[in-house]
Order: sequence, then C-alpha cells, then structure tokens
Amino acid sequence: MTFSIEKLFHQSPPIIRALTVCYRGHSLKPFSPLQTTSSVSNPRNIFQLRTKATTNSDMETNRAAFKKLLTQRFFVCPSFEIYGGIAGLYDLGPPATAIKANILNFWRQHFILNENMLEIDSTCVTPEPVLVASGHVGRFTDLMVKDLITSNCFRADHILEDRLKTLIAALKPEETDKLKELEDVSAQVDTYTEKEMDEMIKKYGVVAPETGNGLSYPEPFNLMFKTSIGPTGTVPGDSYLRPETAQGIFVNFKRLLEFNGGKLPFASAQIGQAYRNEIAPRSGLLRVREFTLAEVEHFVDPEDKSHPKFASVANVQINAFPRDLQLAEKKETTLISIGDAVKQGMINNETLGYFIARVHLFLLGCGVKPDKLRFRQHLANEMAHYAADCWDAEILNSYGWTECVGIADRSAFDLTAHTTSTKQSLTAFVEYKDGARNVEVHTPKLDKGKIGKSLGKKAQALTQYLSNLDNQAAAKLEADLKEKDSVPVTLGDETYTIQKDFISGWNKETKRVTGAHITPGVIEPSFGIGRILYSVLEQSYWLRENDEQRAVLSLPAAIAPVKVSLLPLGNRQNNLTGPFVELLSEYNISYRLDDTGASIGKRYSRADEIGIPFGITIDFQTEQDKSVTLRERDSTTQVRLQFDEVAEVLTRLVHHRIKWEDVLNKYPRVQPQA
Amino acid sequence: MTFSIEKLFHQSPPIIRALTVCYRGHSLKPFSPLQTTSSVSNPRNIFQLRTKATTNSDMETNRAAFKKLLTQRFFVCPSFEIYGGIAGLYDLGPPATAIKANILNFWRQHFILNENMLEIDSTCVTPEPVLVASGHVGRFTDLMVKDLITSNCFRADHILEDRLKTLIAALKPEETDKLKELEDVSAQVDTYTEKEMDEMIKKYGVVAPETGNGLSYPEPFNLMFKTSIGPTGTVPGDSYLRPETAQGIFVNFKRLLEFNGGKLPFASAQIGQAYRNEIAPRSGLLRVREFTLAEVEHFVDPEDKSHPKFASVANVQINAFPRDLQLAEKKETTLISIGDAVKQGMINNETLGYFIARVHLFLLGCGVKPDKLRFRQHLANEMAHYAADCWDAEILNSYGWTECVGIADRSAFDLTAHTTSTKQSLTAFVEYKDGARNVEVHTPKLDKGKIGKSLGKKAQALTQYLSNLDNQAAAKLEADLKEKDSVPVTLGDETYTIQKDFISGWNKETKRVTGAHITPGVIEPSFGIGRILYSVLEQSYWLRENDEQRAVLSLPAAIAPVKVSLLPLGNRQNNLTGPFVELLSEYNISYRLDDTGASIGKRYSRADEIGIPFGITIDFQTEQDKSVTLRERDSTTQVRLQFDEVAEVLTRLVHHRIKWEDVLNKYPRVQPQA
Repeated sequence: MTFSIEKLFHQSPPIIRALTVCYRGHSLKPFSPLQTTSSVSNPRNIFQLRTKATTNSDMETNRAAFKKLLTQRFFVCPSFEIYGGIAGLYDLGPPATAIKANILNFWRQHFILNENMLEIDSTCVTPEPVLVASGHVGRFTDLMVKDLITSNCFRADHILEDRLKTLIAALKPEETDKLKELEDVSAQVDTYTEKEMDEMIKKYGVVAPETGNGLSYPEPFNLMFKTSIGPTGTVPGDSYLRPETAQGIFVNFKRLLEFNGGKLPFASAQIGQAYRNEIAPRSGLLRVREFTLAEVEHFVDPEDKSHPKFASVANVQINAFPRDLQLAEKKETTLISIGDAVKQGMINNETLGYFIARVHLFLLGCGVKPDKLRFRQHLANEMAHYAADCWDAEILNSYGWTECVGIADRSAFDLTAHTTSTKQSLTAFVEYKDGARNVEVHTPKLDKGKIGKSLGKKAQALTQYLSNLDNQAAAKLEADLKEKDSVPVTLGDETYTIQKDFISGWNKETKRVTGAHITPGVIEPSFGIGRILYSVLEQSYWLRENDEQRAVLSLPAAIAPVKVSLLPLGNRQNNLTGPFVELLSEYNISYRLDDTGASIGKRYSRADEIGIPFGITIDFQTEQDKSVTLRERDSTTQVRLQFDEVAEVLTRLVHHRIKWEDVLNKYPRVQPQA
Repeated sequence: MTFSIEKLFHQSPPIIRALTVCYRGHSLKPFSPLQTTSSVSNPRNIFQLRTKATTNSDMETNRAAFKKLLTQRFFVCPSFEIYGGIAGLYDLGPPATAIKANILNFWRQHFILNENMLEIDSTCVTPEPVLVASGHVGRFTDLMVKDLITSNCFRADHILEDRLKTLIAALKPEETDKLKELEDVSAQVDTYTEKEMDEMIKKYGVVAPETGNGLSYPEPFNLMFKTSIGPTGTVPGDSYLRPETAQGIFVNFKRLLEFNGGKLPFASAQIGQAYRNEIAPRSGLLRVREFTLAEVEHFVDPEDKSHPKFASVANVQINAFPRDLQLAEKKETTLISIGDAVKQGMINNETLGYFIARVHLFLLGCGVKPDKLRFRQHLANEMAHYAADCWDAEILNSYGWTECVGIADRSAFDLTAHTTSTKQSLTAFVEYKDGARNVEVHTPKLDKGKIGKSLGKKAQALTQYLSNLDNQAAAKLEADLKEKDSVPVTLGDETYTIQKDFISGWNKETKRVTGAHITPGVIEPSFGIGRILYSVLEQSYWLRENDEQRAVLSLPAAIAPVKVSLLPLGNRQNNLTGPFVELLSEYNISYRLDDTGASIGKRYSRADEIGIPFGITIDFQTEQDKSVTLRERDSTTQVRLQFDEVAEVLTRLVHHRIKWEDVLNKYPRVQPQA
C-alpha cells in the first residue's frame, strides 16, 4: 500500500468519530455519538449544526495552506516515506515533537504533580488473558467486507455511508420520505450487526469502491495488533499491542493501593503508546494506527465521590452540551460553572466535575480557544451499562467537533473484570463514615480431621482460607451449604471442593467492625495527545493581514517548540552570537539560530511559521552597547534591552509569569526592521 | 510461563553481554566483547578482572536487601503479575517512573537542548523492507535449540556455557590443557554458526536443562516481535516492533537535512520504546523484552569530523579502557583527558571524543559514581567492518561492568543501506574546504529521436535523468558504454535500458565546482535508559551505619523521584499542611505528604528509602512563628527557616544551584528529632 504526501488530509468526514480510547468492554462499537442516537428526532439537524460550525470558522478556508505548512516545515510526514509510506502511520518532525513534549510536560505538571498522582510505566506488549478480561479480545472490532475479486478490504460502515451520500445527492426534492429513510440508516451505520450490515449492503447496492465488484459477508475484524512472546509455545496464546494504557494501571491496582498506604481515594496515571490496527484508515492525523495516550485512573469509594479540592474549581465556566440540550430542537451548548453543573445534577458527581474543570483548564493552557471547546455528555444509550456518566472534551477543528479527551465514571467495572479473571481480590478497606458498627459475625468451626483426610497436603491452603473468610463470604458459604452438599472454590491455580462435613457448625459473635472491603469505582480522564496536538496547531494558525504568504502559529510560549530565535543582522553580527548561545543554554531556553543571509523579514517569517514566540535581533547597536531588540511574534512589536536582562525576561515570558504588555511598558519600543 | 518476584534478580552472569542496541547489520551476533575475543591471550584473566571488581564492591553484599526494597517500595514489578507475569517484561512503579522521567528530561536538556538537536518521534511498528535494509531481518538472531520431547526452547549459547561451567568445576587441578580448551570454547559460545554449535553440543554432551532430554539442531531465532498491519494482504509482508529507534531517523534523513537548511553537521535524536523478543530472558532488569532507548544520530562530513565545541570538553577526564590495555597482561583502565585521547589517536576523532565526554558528564549528573564508570573501546574484531571506532560506557553494578551507552562511529553504512533499498539519494552537498575547483565536466549529447522511438512516452523520464547526471555518474556511464552496448538504470519503479546509440557523443568543458554530494557519516550515541536507571539505583543504595534497617538512596536531587517530604509532627500540625502544599505546587516542587501517625524517625526512613532528598517538618514552633525545619537526606542535618523562604531554597537545591553546605552556613542548625 503506497502513500502520497498529498493524501495526508484528503479525507474530511463531516463528523469525526469518537475516540476509541474510551471504548472498552461492553459497548459494542467505538461509538459515533450523534450518529448512533436513534432517539434523536432529526439526525440531519445535528449534522447541520456541526457542518455550520465548521463552515463558519476561518479554519476550513485555510486548511490547504495549513496542510502545506505542516509538511513543508516537517511538523509531520508519513512514516517510512522513502519506502512508500504506510497508511495510518505518521512521524512527527522536530517542531511537532517539541510541542508534543511540551504538552506532555505540562500534563505531568497539571495533573500528576498537582494531584500527587502515582505515575507508572507498564509494558505495551500484553498477553491475551488480560485483554479477554477487559473485553478487547471479544469486542474491540470493526465490521469488514472484502472485494470478492481483488480481496481488498474495507470498513463496511464507511463504504455503506459513502453509498448513502451518493444516493442522497441523487434524490429529487420531492422524495422526502426516501431522504428520511436514507438519513436514518446513515445515522446508524456503525451500530449494525453482521447480518444487518449484510442486508443494508444488499438493499442499497453497495459495491467495492473503484472496481465495482461484489462484496463478501461482513465479518468483525479485531483492531488490535497481534504478536507473540518468545518462540512458539513459550508464552501460550497470542499477545497484543495494548489498545490503551489503562489496563496497565488496573492490573497493578494492589501494588498502587499499598504504595498509597491502603487509602482511598488516589489516582494513578500513565503516558504511553497505544495501537489500533485500522482496516483502512482515512482521516489523516485524527485516525492513526499508533498514538500517544495520557490516562488517569482515579480510584474512589463508590459511596463517596466528593472531591477535597472541588471548591477550587467550582467557579470554572465550561461550554456544556448535556444530554437534554443535544435532544432539544435547538442544539446549543450552555455556559455553566462546574459548581452549578454538579449542584443541578447535570454532572453526576464532584470528582467527575473536578476533572472536567481540570481538563478545561489544561486544554486552554495548551492553546485551545475557549469558544472552540465544548464538553459533550454521552447520551444514555451511548454509554456502557456500567458507566455512571461520561463527558467528552470536543475541540473544533476544520474536520468538525473532534473528541480529544474522554472523562468517564466507569464504576467498578474494570477491577471487577480482572478479579473475575484472576480470582485476586482487588479491593480497598474503607472505614464506615458513621463510625464503627456492631456486626454479628459468623465463623465456621472447622473439622480439620475431615479436611486433612480428604485433601492431604492441600488441606492447609483450604483451612487457611476458611479461617480467614470475611463476613460476606462467610454468610454466603453458610447459605450455600444449607442448600448444597459441597461448594467449589478456586485458590491460586487449584480448585477445591468444600464439603458440608468440613464444617461442624458456626460460631456467632457480635463484633465492632470499623469498615468494609469494597471494590473502588474509577473515574477516568483519557487524553488523545495526537488529536490535541493537531487541533491546537490548526487553531493557532492564521495569516497576517495583507500578506497571505506570512503564516503564523500563535502557540502559547510554554507550548511553542522553540522559545526564541536568534537573528544576527549581518556577517559582522554573526560573530557575536556565542555569548547569547551560552546564556540561553544556561537558562535552559531553547533557541534557533538563523544566521542565513536571508532578509530579517523573511527570517521573522520562518520563525513565525513554526510558532517561535520571541526573537532576539543582534544589530549594529549591539556591537556598541550590548543591547538587542526583542520581538514578540503575534504583535510584531519590539523593545530594546540589555544583554544582561534578556534571559531573565525571556524566562518569565516563557513561564507566563509576565505578559508581553509588561515588557512593552518597561522597555523602550523600537520600530520593526523590514 | 510464570514468574515469581523472587526470580527478579536471581541470575548473575559474570559478564553482562553488550547492549544489543548497538548491534546492527553486519556483525553476526550481539557481541559479547571480552568473551568473543579469540585474539586475547588468556580469556580467564579478563574474567578474573571483572569478577574481582564486582567482589570488591559493597554492592553485592547489599543486593538481597536492595532487591527487597525495589519490590516492596514498588520501584518495579513483573508485568501482569496478577496473571502470573511474563519473563522479560517489567512495569515501573511510581518512584522508578518519576526517576526515569527525570533522567529523560535531563537527557533532553543535556543533549537535545544544549546541542540544538532535531528530535523526532517516529512509529514503532515498522514494515519489513526497512528492516531488511538495516540487516535486522537477516541477522538479528540468537541460536535456539529445543528439548526433543517437551519442545521447550533454550538459547543455545546459554546452555552450552552452563555445561562448560559444570565441566570446568569438575576438573582436577592437573588437567590444565582441558581447562584451556573449555575456557576457549566458553569465550566463543555466541560466535558459533549453527553447525559449529551443533558440534559443540554433541561434543560436550549438552542436554536440555531439568529434563535431560536430547536437543534439536540449533536454528537462528529472529529476535524481533512480528506483527502485521491491517487485514491480511493490505500491507504485504510482515511488520515488526522496532529493535532500535535509530532507523526512524535514517529513513527521515532527507527531511531532517532540509529542515537544517541542507547543512552538515547536524544531529537528530529520538527517545522511545524498542523491543527484543528474547528466547528465554534470564538477567532480570538488565535483559528485558521491552525497553526505552534514547538515541542520537550525528551526521558529519566523513572528511571532517572536527567538532566546534570540542575545546569545551577537552579537559574532561575519563576512565578509558582502550584496546591495547584490554590486550595487555595487566588489564587496567587509564585516566586520561578527552583532549589527549583524541590527540594520541586513542579515540578516532573529535566528534566521537566530544560525545564520549558529554556521555561521561551526563552519567555523572544521573548519579553514577566516577570510579564505577569506564569507557571501553571495542576490539578490532568486535566491530562491524564499516565502523571507524566504537566505545561503550560501562557502569559497574553488582552484575559486573554493564554496557549502558554505546558510542559508535558507524561511517556511512546506514544511509547507504537505505539508498540501496529505495534508490533514493540520501546525500548532502558539502563545499570543498579549499575553495571551488576547476573540473572537466562531461555531458552526454542526447539523440532524442532514438530515445523517443525506443521508449515512447517513457522517454521523458530518461532524457531528464541523462540531462542532469552529476560528474561521477556521467564519467561512469561514459566508461560503461565504451565496454557495453547498453546500461540499465532504475528510476522510481521502472528499469530503463540506456542504449549506446542514445548518446551521440560527449561535450567536455571546464567548470568551477564548489563542492560535492556526499553520503554523510554518522556518529551514534545510544542509551539504554533502563540499564542506566538500574545501575544508578544500585550505586545510590547504602545502609546507615549501626542501623541496617535504614536504607538510603542517595540520588542527586534533580533525579530523585520526589523532591521533598512534608511531615507534620502530630494531629494539630496535620491541619497546617495546606499552605505548604499550595506553595510547593506553585513552585512545581514535587512533594510527598506523610501525615501518618508513625514516629518522625520512621517517616524520615521511608523517605530516605525512595531517595527523597529533603524533608520539611512542621512542628510545635511552626504554629507560633511559621518556621519549619528542613532536613537533608544523606547527612541527616537540619536547619530552621521561615515558611516564606523554604520554596525558594528548595528550588535552588533541586536545580543544584546551591549546595546543602550553603544552607547550613546561612540558617541555624537544629538537632534532629528522634
């Protein structure tokens, strides 16, 4: 499969499908929120809403030029380009790599450091049983059809949707019923079963693109990259490249809880690569086969989802797009404070609200425009049955509203699934809020002779188990043995049979109990870093008025790939750069030296294009009094200041401790050079 | 395959094999430097050298306790532990993840920022042709044998070596000839071909461990994890998880050069995961299947390997272990300055020397002890034929001298290999140092009629090619067509035949030529981050005198996982932590709040164990005058200072801008509390 640069962004689906990183376990498909909502009265309206928002933005107009900039300045290129490239795999060049590193550093500061989260670093190669438990082996699939002659593979929902668009375009104005029918089908393309999909393909005459050949019966294709560990048979079964980093946290829950002194709540976080082996990727940088996720798993007592720092974010205002507004005739977001949203019950609980607010602040810090960011709540039928509430941070770019962060209250689903698979208890002890309670405790009187006779050497393990039953387990065993003669139990790799006569009776006593072992709930903010990066780049891009050749990326200084460009005016000044390079290195300020002979205007322009926020020009006066000019990218205004001061001023600017206005007020303005 | 925690470090091979990240292409095996050296007169001496160094260290004595600490405090655990674990896969817990992030941040600063390197972020999934070109598909293998009955797999060299050890141990003192023979074989175990290995297995009666069954004929097992992209057939051939990050840089060379304005020298860097699908991993954290590499590819004009910043490192002194000293009777390292080492020709060139010095400084900054770090030069027969010179940074830990960084001058091998595979020119234009030259240029006179008649529509591509031949190519074509009637040439996907009569003659003229297109050489420092992390942890570990329960990790503050612990003395002080938490967050200083009821001594001890360098104690006096005590980990000395000052002082300490002695001199000492 070859790949050309020109195809990088050739696809512009009207709706970006939801981030599949949030998909896990029970929902049958990576959800495509507004399309899959059969309860929505008029899916077309929603379609229009999105299209409208897109068309109104400057972004779409600029996309062609923006695309060109991304490749020309090596923000991104197809991976293995000199070998023809591979669809869905992209490499980040120097500017994008630096911006991504800055975003991740900011993420670490904003979430991990600020919340004292426990960051871990787990492996990507994952054995099958883990992903059977999580639901990925069974259900992380897309429906695939093949060209019956060429065997080319297609995503069934994509080519059905393409066909429907063609049919809709060919309709006469009076065929309103037919329009409604086609739109309804279009809204559900990725919810169909194999059989339903096959029917739709036949009904609407879908054929293989390009060849026009017939298509095979749709079959689910698992989206995980498969591999195997060691020589055949060493590690039995397949292994996979992880589809998300979250499972690495869940399987380490016991050690994490212990590290946290056994106390809830706490959060663990992970940054790393994840994989999705797309059938036929088409949405450029927004739908790739290898990507970076940053995920948080915040473990809480399901009975108490308050958050100690909630007050600190209660006044944060977000563009909320809750369920009822999505279902209303006029589909508008509402500006609301997190405090009110939780108070009104719009957002399920404080912890979920707290993270929505923190995500909001994080994205603004990355350079997302407030009016191009909204939080959309999942509709009831979008959510997995176990989820309490889910919100997506959607960022507007030229492809439409794109889900970039999912914030989900997943209840106790994940830990429960791994407990079921491993028989390991993944619980935490939580004290009763209302103090200790008197509880009638039943403990079995063991007939050790009988156990020993029946089990021999294995008796000890079972005896130990029976002696340490907690209340719930004891009550259940007592009840079970009233009805049955034996009860099986699995300890480690062995299954034991508890026979009725192993237990001669039950002691009953009243005990003071201070709390209970519970399976924690989990609230999961999950960040698609590549999508955030792409959206931030697109939103930052603009062209200077009256000069369409001069593109600017207005990235926040903290996120910008390089902080300052160093521009000696001529050959004589080229010899003066040494002390500046040393100074900037000493202050850890990244710089780009541009000592080419190009005009100063052209060199400013090159710096603007990759988002460098400041420029130091070394000119004739520098030779005389060691002063330089400092230029700000967006306003192009300049001041003159001394060599001694420039590193300190830059440090403050880069860390957003002072604003450019402060610098303008303090130092003499100079007129920009051509 | 199950895994127990106890096995984490159960293997202690006397010599750690060389980092295979440096292996690429032509050398037949991941090299095992001193063992494979048949030119060494007495391999045993070398063995003793290493063993001696290991035995002399305090580290081995402490290893059991150190291992326990690593697992108890969740620095590391086997991946998927609750599912039984997988050999060769480990997860890093919170302290190790934070230390690793700090090491990588420091790496970015020390190399990328300081050298203005071009960092990229390429994908891990790699299609086969790329790794055929690099040599990994053909030669990145270990010899494997199978138990003929159980089919269990083993690394042939490992079990042969084990057998030799048993045989050596059983020798009588007088059997010196036999000893010499067994030692010679032992020194070469990983250099044998399949046939030789089979002979050795038969000769020395090697059988399958545990079962004693016979063994299969040895076969090469490729060490890359295999996968495939998309549904079968979409992307033809296998794909692999990259065995190193370097190839991602080489395939992007053209774009990187362009990004650098077409100028040499420049360096590109990448940090990322790499994989090695071991047959049967046995060396704990030093030999894993998934690991993080940080690699630099510094591209240079092969004719000019000087380095502009060489003077800045010329006085850096390293423990050098060059070839001649390894081959000498007394195998000792020598302390030498980088300047002298290059001047004497011990190190091949300035750029290589510059990087060796920078690696030295980097490792010391990570906390490696200077006397436990050496730079070992590869012996002539260890190096690939194309390499100009290679040095390994070896760090001493309880397993012996462990290769953690490879610094190799790889000449133009990698770019040439990809050019051969893709027919894409991966060259840079380099100006002649001695100014422009007069060159006699031959250009072909094309018979366009004949070309058109013969090739039809395809004529244009060939005409264009022939009109733009560079000097070398033109001279070669002219010579070839004197001997042959036609010469084939591949342009893009097509192969053309240049017939003699396409060219009616040759124009000859003298031109001024300013330079030539050359294939750059590459100097590659390649860092095994996990090995550095492990070695630093082990070297930092010690026990307080007279109190073996109190372990300390003396990590440099910049590398420490958490910078300060916050210790309120009692319940009343627990209510005073708020402002400290806010202050530390504001200054981005990571902290760990320990408000458990444990004694202050116990809490200090817990902090010492994970290497937290400083501790703030909030005590009775804090309530009165807002002062706190600040304690330093290694000396356990304490001072008292004001709340307002503590964040600023900590910031300076953490960035190593002031020393603890400075703090002791400025603030009043207080006696440590029990």
